[in-house]
Order: sequence, then C-alpha cells, then structure tokens
Amino acid sequence: MEDQKDRDTESRLDLQTRFIIEIDKLKHITRRTRLFDNSRHENDAEHGWHLAMMAMTLAEYSNKPIDINKVVRMVLVHDIVEIDAGDTFLYDDAAALRKEEAERKAAERIFGLLPGDQARELKSLWEEFEARLSAEARFAAAIDRLEPMMQNALTAGHAWKKHNVSRGQVVQKNRPVVEAGSKKLWKFAEELLARAVESGHLQE
Amino acid sequence: MEDQKDRDTESRLDLQTRFIIEIDKLKHITRRTRLFDNSRHENDAEHGWHLAMMAMTLAEYSNKPIDINKVVRMVLVHDIVEIDAGDTFLYDDAAALRKEEAERKAAERIFGLLPGDQARELKSLWEEFEARLSAEARFAAAIDRLEPMMQNALTAGHAWKKHNVSRGQVVQKNRPVVEAGSKKLWKFAEELLARAVESGHLQE
Repeated sequence: MEDQKDRDTESRLDLQTRFIIEIDKLKHITRRTRLFDNSRHENDAEHGWHLAMMAMTLAEYSNKPIDINKVVRMVLVHDIVEIDAGDTFLYDDAAALRKEEAERKAAERIFGLLPGDQARELKSLWEEFEARLSAEARFAAAIDRLEPMMQNALTAGHAWKKHNVSRGQVVQKNRPVVEAGSKKLWKFAEELLARAVESGHLQE
Repeated sequence: MEDQKDRDTESRLDLQTRFIIEIDKLKHITRRTRLFDNSRHENDAEHGWHLAMMAMTLAEYSNKPIDINKVVRMVLVHDIVEIDAGDTFLYDDAAALRKEEAERKAAERIFGLLPGDQARELKSLWEEFEARLSAEARFAAAIDRLEPMMQNALTAGHAWKKHNVSRGQVVQKNRPVVEAGSKKLWKFAEELLARAVESGHLQE
C-alpha cells in the first residue's frame, strides 16, 4: 500500500469512492446459514450489520473490559476480504487451510484501494480480528460464532443438517473461540445446542 | 419502556436475544435503490452496513468535528423502525407525512424489547438521528442521502427514472441535508448529478 498514491493526481476522495463502490460486492457473498425465518441465505454485508448490533447489545458479557467501538468497527470490516476469497464454511477444514493466503491477498488489494493511512488502519483492524489476541478481537470472534449457531437453532438446523454436522463438531469448533470471548455467551450457546439436539435439529 | 422488566423473571439475556432475533427482519425491508451492479434492490440491513463503512471512510469531510463511533452506531440503528413502518421513498411527500407516527410507535415497540437501559440508549440514538441537530446526526444524515445518489448514478438512474424524479427534486431534497453535514460531500454529489444529467440518466 503505497503512500505516494495520496500525492498523486487522484484525490483522496476518488480513492475513498473507489473503495466504497468496491465493497458493495460484499452484498453478493452468500453464507451457508439462513435468515432467522429460513427464507433465504444471509449475505456478508447483512451479517456484518447484525454482528455489530449483537456486539452493541451483548458487550456486557465480554470476559474482559472492551472498547466496544473497536469491536463494532472490527465486525463491520472482518469479512470484506471474502469479496475475493469467498466465504469458507467453518466445518470445511481443507478450505480453511487454503483461505489464509487468499484472504491476505484480498486484504492488500481491497483495503489498498484506500489512501495509505486508511488502508493501514482497516488492514490492521482485520489482522487484529484474525489474530484473536486482543480482548476486542476475542469478543468479536465470539459474536461471529454465536450468530450462525442462533441461525441454525432457529431454522431447524438448516446448515448443520445439510452439511452433516454433529453437536461434537459444533462444540469442538466453537467452544474455544466463544469461551475465549465470553464464558456467559458460551453457556447460552450450549443451551441452544442442547435444545437443538432434543428437537432433532442437530445430531448428537 | 418499563424498567421492571429487568427485575422480572425473564433475564436480561432473554430480552436481548429477543431483540437480536426481531431485528433480523430488517434484512427483508427492501429499498427503492439498487446495488451498484444493478442486479437487485438493496435491503435496510445491507444499507446500514454500507453507511457505517462510508461514515468511517469519509469522516474527515464532516463540516464539524464528530465522534465517529457515535455516527457509526447511529447509522446502524437508524432504519430499525422500518421493520414496522416500512421504507419511505424520499420523493413521496404524502408517505413522509404518515411515517412519523408509525416510526415513533415502531421505536417504542422494537427498542422496547431490550432491557430498559439499552432500550433508552438506542431509542435516544434514533431520536438524535431524526432530529438532525447534533454534528453526528447531520453527518449521518448526509451519508444516508449520499449512498442512494451514488446508487442511482451507478445504475443509470434506476430509481430516478422509475419514479420520474428530476435533478431539481434531487437537489431540493438532498442539498440542505447533505450540506448541513458536509459541504465537501455535497460538492461531490453535485458532480455526480451533473454527470447523470449529461448521460441522460437524470432529467434536467
């Protein structure tokens, strides 16, 4: 991400406009999970909005004190790399191995459309989310895992059933991440999963 | 919004979960404008996400210093009332008169699903947006007007043409609002409109 861009003939606002136009494509990236009324799949832009609202609503359950504004910015930005790299299903381990390099390149290209200072800021926010080391990143990741569990629980286990996912797998993939951000929200998720097993929406 | 709710048997997390589930409906509220690639109409949840990203990217053009985090929260929340009240087309003056009461009731009902403290916080954020008196609300409103102008400009004037809107009407409705938040962004919008008229996408 070259700083000379800012000094070029193209104005900051032109660069910013190009970024704003480019990220519209996130509205076309379809996720595996469905809206709560099971009418259609969710897209990444809607998902970003819902995570931000969930983070604002559930901030009090973070294990550690957090800067909620940073969490909100982080969840809004975290999936933008999927414009190039696509959505990876959490339970597809082979795809998970491939996605890291693709997402890194996507971050360079897409955040790199912005003036240098803003490109660095958003890229670093995305990197912080991915590294899951700060309290903010841990809480953001917990929320990012909670939404699809709620979506599955409310749509009779749509994606779980379709992709043959068991409670054991859901717990294995999500417990470490959700618990690291919020023990209270993991407890809530466990109750969702138990009810889904009882209702036959999730295989034991 | 009764505070005793918090002390009732229903826990805070139950109330918060109910709100999180309710606002999923915003993904079904369709706007008049279309995605930048003209493939389909935008919905309110995607719109909220895009406005938040635009606000973060364009904050430097606010006429006055702003708390950008407040602007982000405000644009995320501002359309939730449309779950009950529906989307009102900016150029439909009769509908604009009817919407105020419907939106006020919607705010009571939907934010009122939350525990009292959070219900008050989000409702007051929405009221601040609607009143357009603070620097944050003015900048949020400017961004909220800029996105549809960009969408129309990039989709050969789709909603302008369909609803027979002229440049004079676009300027009359948007100039006072956008200029109050950002003179620089209004100048940018004027250039968009001039190019749209030249291309025959907007009637003079």
